[in-house]
Amino acid sequence: MPERVVQAMSQPLIDHRGPQFAALLSKVTSGLKEIFKTVGGRILLFPGSGTGAWECCIVNTLSPGEKVLGCVNGHFSDLFCKTATAHGIDVERLEVEYGAGVPAERIEERLRRDRDRHIKAVLLVQTETSTGVTSDLAEIRKAIDAVSHPALLLADVVSSLGCSDLRFDDWKVDVALTAPQKGLMLPPGMALLAASERALEANRSAKCARSFWDWRPVLESNAAGYFPYTPATALLFGLSESLKILSEEGLENVFHRHARLAEACRRAVTAMRLNLFAKNSAQYSNTLTAVAMPEGLDSDTFIDHTLKLVDLPLGKGLGKVKGKLFRIGHLGSLNELEILGVLAGIEMALESFGVKIPLGAGLAAAESYLLETAKKRSPL
Amino acid sequence: MPERVVQAMSQPLIDHRGPQFAALLSKVTSGLKEIFKTVGGRILLFPGSGTGAWECCIVNTLSPGEKVLGCVNGHFSDLFCKTATAHGIDVERLEVEYGAGVPAERIEERLRRDRDRHIKAVLLVQTETSTGVTSDLAEIRKAIDAVSHPALLLADVVSSLGCSDLRFDDWKVDVALTAPQKGLMLPPGMALLAASERALEANRSAKCARSFWDWRPVLESNAAGYFPYTPATALLFGLSESLKILSEEGLENVFHRHARLAEACRRAVTAMRLNLFAKNSAQYSNTLTAVAMPEGLDSDTFIDHTLKLVDLPLGKGLGKVKGKLFRIGHLGSLNELEILGVLAGIEMALESFGVKIPLGAGLAAAESYLLETAKKRSPL
Amino acid sequence: MPERVVQAMSQPLIDHRGPQFAALLSKVTSGLKEIFKTVGGRILLFPGSGTGAWECCIVNTLSPGEKVLGCVNGHFSDLFCKTATAHGIDVERLEVEYGAGVPAERIEERLRRDRDRHIKAVLLVQTETSTGVTSDLAEIRKAIDAVSHPALLLADVVSSLGCSDLRFDDWKVDVALTAPQKGLMLPPGMALLAASERALEANRSAKCARSFWDWRPVLESNAAGYFPYTPATALLFGLSESLKILSEEGLENVFHRHARLAEACRRAVTAMRLNLFAKNSAQYSNTLTAVAMPEGLDSDTFIDHTLKLVDLPLGKGLGKVKGKLFRIGHLGSLNELEILGVLAGIEMALESFGVKIPLGAGLAAAESYLLETAKKRSPL
Amino acid sequence: MPERVVQAMSQPLIDHRGPQFAALLSKVTSGLKEIFKTVGGRILLFPGSGTGAWECCIVNTLSPGEKVLGCVNGHFSDLFCKTATAHGIDVERLEVEYGAGVPAERIEERLRRDRDRHIKAVLLVQTETSTGVTSDLAEIRKAIDAVSHPALLLADVVSSLGCSDLRFDDWKVDVALTAPQKGLMLPPGMALLAASERALEANRSAKCARSFWDWRPVLESNAAGYFPYTPATALLFGLSESLKILSEEGLENVFHRHARLAEACRRAVTAMRLNLFAKNSAQYSNTLTAVAMPEGLDSDTFIDHTLKLVDLPLGKGLGKVKGKLFRIGHLGSLNELEILGVLAGIEMALESFGVKIPLGAGLAAAESYLLETAKKRSPL
Repeated sequence: MPERVVQAMSQPLIDHRGPQFAALLSKVTSGLKEIFKTVGGRILLFPGSGTGAWECCIVNTLSPGEKVLGCVNGHFSDLFCKTATAHGIDVERLEVEYGAGVPAERIEERLRRDRDRHIKAVLLVQTETSTGVTSDLAEIRKAIDAVSHPALLLADVVSSLGCSDLRFDDWKVDVALTAPQKGLMLPPGMALLAASERALEANRSAKCARSFWDWRPVLESNAAGYFPYTPATALLFGLSESLKILSEEGLENVFHRHARLAEACRRAVTAMRLNLFAKNSAQYSNTLTAVAMPEGLDSDTFIDHTLKLVDLPLGKGLGKVKGKLFRIGHLGSLNELEILGVLAGIEMALESFGVKIPLGAGLAAAESYLLETAKKRSPL
Repeated sequence: MPERVVQAMSQPLIDHRGPQFAALLSKVTSGLKEIFKTVGGRILLFPGSGTGAWECCIVNTLSPGEKVLGCVNGHFSDLFCKTATAHGIDVERLEVEYGAGVPAERIEERLRRDRDRHIKAVLLVQTETSTGVTSDLAEIRKAIDAVSHPALLLADVVSSLGCSDLRFDDWKVDVALTAPQKGLMLPPGMALLAASERALEANRSAKCARSFWDWRPVLESNAAGYFPYTPATALLFGLSESLKILSEEGLENVFHRHARLAEACRRAVTAMRLNLFAKNSAQYSNTLTAVAMPEGLDSDTFIDHTLKLVDLPLGKGLGKVKGKLFRIGHLGSLNELEILGVLAGIEMALESFGVKIPLGAGLAAAESYLLETAKKRSPL
Repeated sequence: MPERVVQAMSQPLIDHRGPQFAALLSKVTSGLKEIFKTVGGRILLFPGSGTGAWECCIVNTLSPGEKVLGCVNGHFSDLFCKTATAHGIDVERLEVEYGAGVPAERIEERLRRDRDRHIKAVLLVQTETSTGVTSDLAEIRKAIDAVSHPALLLADVVSSLGCSDLRFDDWKVDVALTAPQKGLMLPPGMALLAASERALEANRSAKCARSFWDWRPVLESNAAGYFPYTPATALLFGLSESLKILSEEGLENVFHRHARLAEACRRAVTAMRLNLFAKNSAQYSNTLTAVAMPEGLDSDTFIDHTLKLVDLPLGKGLGKVKGKLFRIGHLGSLNELEILGVLAGIEMALESFGVKIPLGAGLAAAESYLLETAKKRSPL
Repeated sequence: MPERVVQAMSQPLIDHRGPQFAALLSKVTSGLKEIFKTVGGRILLFPGSGTGAWECCIVNTLSPGEKVLGCVNGHFSDLFCKTATAHGIDVERLEVEYGAGVPAERIEERLRRDRDRHIKAVLLVQTETSTGVTSDLAEIRKAIDAVSHPALLLADVVSSLGCSDLRFDDWKVDVALTAPQKGLMLPPGMALLAASERALEANRSAKCARSFWDWRPVLESNAAGYFPYTPATALLFGLSESLKILSEEGLENVFHRHARLAEACRRAVTAMRLNLFAKNSAQYSNTLTAVAMPEGLDSDTFIDHTLKLVDLPLGKGLGKVKGKLFRIGHLGSLNELEILGVLAGIEMALESFGVKIPLGAGLAAAESYLLETAKKRSPL
């Protein structure tokens, strides 16, 4: 977390029914709209988590018994679909190999066959944190439009928002849901959603039982500058500051910075003679890189070893890919020297774990790429 | 908020899957059990709010179509019941005059008539924040037992936990639900519940759709030291510290301190020739005091006046009692000089609002009572 | 300390040789000039304390063996003079009764007799913290001018700066020295001085040995935006914020607020039938009020009693007035309700200490005065 | 700064005349004694800086006109000697080539010639921050003892205390002076000294004028648990925490960690085909490494380039070595990944500055050394 965010969060709390709060809410809402790239979308904030955001999305837009197409290409998309099932939704799973993105053409094909328009929504995760894969939402939108299917597009953008591009309006996303602890550089504790006009319309007829997550009272009281529940004011202070930080750097610059560090990381990994878990270079995530563990070695053991050796916490393989990969995060306010330090630590950990690698080779590749791209930016 | 809590909350976050986190969770859980006075009860924590805690309680213990007895004696008990209704529960409202506590004898009478045991639960709020009334949970338990009725006892203890007595085990409460921003002296952002063995049993057959609030995955992963969702770690750090503060002072001492400041406040109010809104002295809340606005005057206007005059935010009348009362909070880490300052501010505000009061009379009454009780505690 | 200051101080440190630091220094310097009300005066900052500021003032403007007139009307002016003596200065003490201000006419009389202009400087303390007396610097300047004496005017403004008026340029003060922990609302840890053109001139010939406190290297490196020693950057961050707070409120408003709370405090003390220690109402300090302990009672014992009874720390009698008075501070960001709470605590402490007072009478007097002056400010 | 220290420093201030403060002072004093490795030495704390600590040391132990032997092997030892000169001390400068340590044999030779024992003290700096050289204090003590010379040993340990070994008692140091912003991991704002029995004796006859820095009132009031001036309480809170951190890790482990990171840094520098500025491997500092700039290149320009390229602030060459070297700090709470990141940044900066280096070679050397020494510590 940036120190500025920590500071903002430790401000004395303000009355959540007073005029200062209304101003804070208004600032946060308009800042989020810029990040989501939406003009007409409505922002909805709840104390909660990404898991809560899934439930909030489902119960507000769907009715028990309705059919949806759930795209499953990793651990988190699997759980998103299971949340829908728990609320009585009939989820048809579009299973995709882990490591691949959601294929627009398969969505198109399935929707084309749905002549009676039974499928009410398409559920997917933009960046699968478990595999380091970012699916192409623009293409998916085109696929849906190609068959003029009215299904809502419900997207988890937890690991992508604020790190790589999301165009809520242009891509006609209906609900984009996220949590604050990734690209927004905050501690966890909230569910954040953007909802389209069509999503709000669906909300009016959706029959899933709801009370806490219900959008209507939130939208009504937000219009008056407050919340129907006691909001997590400290997080809103922090959010206001992190949006300011993103805005000061410029969103496209933030994306470019993530993309540059991610590519440096991937070049280093390749120079260490390891394989990326993501299959397709067009789908590499700029938020995190999943690295396939060499055959015969268990990544969980390697991750424990790395933590002990150099106090570096890597992400584990989740669900079906447990033991098969480790994940390097390169999001938020991470800078060049920090990612280089992380890569050096991974070299040390691999070497001492028995993976034969040329020490320094990964670093040289990353440094070389960073220098090359730095030179392009500003001649020294 | 005590500075110690602010400090604890601004610690660097820890990995919510690591051993440090498991230790934190274990400390928080056992500390909360002491506050709830339970040995066998299970603690359940969610990112959320008190509003979320209502939903969490309902969807985990009940099924759509089931009947409950909802005791309504203020704004918050009204909303608790409406949450149940939103989830398809058939709520029979036991309406009580605002300002009165929930009458044990009426519950007993109603349950006695429920020969077929259709009523699955009794819903109530221990301390109604909107009226400053604390109902007698021990008596209500006796009433239920008197007719050997199996209804679950589901109690909102948001404004009472950590301020006045709650005996989860002794009073056989089935679910006690709360939020962190009152007696626990934290910022908002969580839902906290204690659940009895019978509540867990009800959970197994409850048919309300649920996913985020579902107790089962939480209990399972808590047993292993983590959460099925990203927890609000900063709040858990703060909670650990506030539990330590309560434990250092001693829970009975905390109650005694609240009771003493509350009584000083009530004596001051009476000496100002105003009336308490709570009808029955045995039901005065030690968390807050609701003061009836003199006939012909609007309390909302008076509250605005007080804020402008002495920068003192008083609580407004909510729902049915809007404009009719103002509320003085005396909870958490408030000390004697702070409550005396508040009372002096109220004297000033009343005088300048045109209510004829003898300046200083309220203060004299409060000081006199505080001195009297101070002398009892430690001869000087 | 205001929370904004605490926040500002916990910012990550910046390079004290970089451009950000130069900007911070420039902001702090120009902000302080406004507080000192000087255009041509030079600001000098050192890690240190008020005690250090005395030494800094002496060694930079005087030479061993030179004569000064030291006005002693309390504990702190006594120590200021002793600092001069320690550095070989020949201090002629102008002794004044504790509780009285420095009499301009006695200074005038003494300087008039100094035909050969042996007296190089007049040393005094604007507000004597030990007695709650503020001397009239404007009158003292007139007295010096009346006899056209060239003595430097060296003034300790520790307890007055930012609380009551100081006009460095208008009153031709040569050195005004202070510390950050009073009107500037910071933690201790600095010596702050303003020096006139004449003081800088004296500096060039002053022969007291000096190195750390030497003004010359500080002025030279400050001109380039840095310090010759490692500065206390966190305090400078805090100072920048506290100057901003003072500027936002407006310096005259700050003085008015202090004067109003001080008068409320004095009225309450009088209504409690106690006597103020300061002799002359024109010299009452707006920073603190010293209250004479009733005959036969020891103020140290009373202060211990008050701390135990209501956790309120009062200031003790220092030096010659030990045991004879207690001091109530009403400076910095204190507000109305806080001072009223303090006064209520003093009523309780007096009553239980055996001083017969009408409980509530002091409060009534304070409330009444505050209401009266509030009404003048803004009709409700 | 470690987050724990930041937290400790933002605690609410306590009364600096109360019992809590006395306990804090006692804890800090005994903790510092362990760091200085002294039993009988007295700890003296002042608001100030390292520059202030020089003055404090001089004025408390010497008299104007007395002769001392000042060892000058860098920028800071030069300034230490100049401080003595400013207070009228007759400093005989023992000039040593920058990059070399203070030669014990030359001290011995000079003191041997001082038959009449005119030399009252030897002044030196243990670790010269300007050159990255640590002199051998144990050898210097032997040299003084070899000729049974009574000169006091006055040592600046600003950049060594808490990073490499200092044995105040064993090496019979008379004054060791430091500041908090290096090995003690605090923000600047204090002068800290340890004084031997002989130094205290010298204090009784020392004739330098002094008041603020005078040891006597400090020792007297410290004995009663307070200070004669307003102490920088926040720094004392921070100091208490940083001493706790050092004690938890164990002082010898702290030294070992610094030595290990320093050696990794030196190996990397050598693998980058650059030269260390320190002449003698036995005198390499474990706190910082000074790197000679390749012939024909200006280090100030390189340092600016590095800051712009990778946001890494390197230390400049000071005084006589301006433009000739850059300095890498590796002190305090720095960890392995951080120093590796720094080294990677230096590789990038050198390459793009036109210094031909094999990218990754420095990193490989550092990683290799760290792995080797990690393996020795704990088999994985």
